[in-house]
Amino acid sequence: MTNNLDTFFGAMSDPTRRAVIERLVTGPAPVSELHAPHDIALPTFLRHLKVLEDSGLVRSEKKGRVRTVHIEAAPLAVAEDWLQNQRLIWEGRIDRLAALAEQIERTAP
Amino acid sequence: MTNNLDTFFGAMSDPTRRAVIERLVTGPAPVSELHAPHDIALPTFLRHLKVLEDSGLVRSEKKGRVRTVHIEAAPLAVAEDWLQNQRLIWEGRIDRLAALAEQIERTAP
Repeated sequence: MTNNLDTFFGAMSDPTRRAVIERLVTGPAPVSELHAPHDIALPTFLRHLKVLEDSGLVRSEKKGRVRTVHIEAAPLAVAEDWLQNQRLIWEGRIDRLAALAEQIERTAP
Repeated sequence: MTNNLDTFFGAMSDPTRRAVIERLVTGPAPVSELHAPHDIALPTFLRHLKVLEDSGLVRSEKKGRVRTVHIEAAPLAVAEDWLQNQRLIWEGRIDRLAALAEQIERTAP
């Protein structure tokens, strides 16, 4: 799981790659459509796609001259779980501190 | 927000830095305690802490000879929100596809 989170968070640290994910959660898309909103050269864009593919976040298939890209949603869920766990532990601590403060206040002379 | 997510996801792409966050959600800790479980030199570990501090994920304060590190939980929530949004959009699409498939099945001859 360590390596999954390494590659997932690394892949998501770039705004172009996050924009591709934001587009693909709405459905598969051809490479040309994914590239269109980005003001970067196609080879640079393809390197971003390769990072996403290498990290298991997308897969693609070619039919004729069109390569269509699909999202693989599982890594998103793994990262969301990790973040949610950290938040729950942190919130649990805050709740305990608040309860403790209340108790001290009640028992104060 | 773009830059926040860039630096947050970049910071979280390293297992040592994630381990520090996993420790700090349970409460503040001195640098020496944070460093202890990691089999890396102190200067290397301090560079990881600096990445976390520069990305606004932790802050530290020195009292006497002890530097204590605290978590700043807000960036965790921002990233969790982003991931949750992607998941909800993706799940919405899956639900619509499932409803469509059911409809086609029902109306098939």
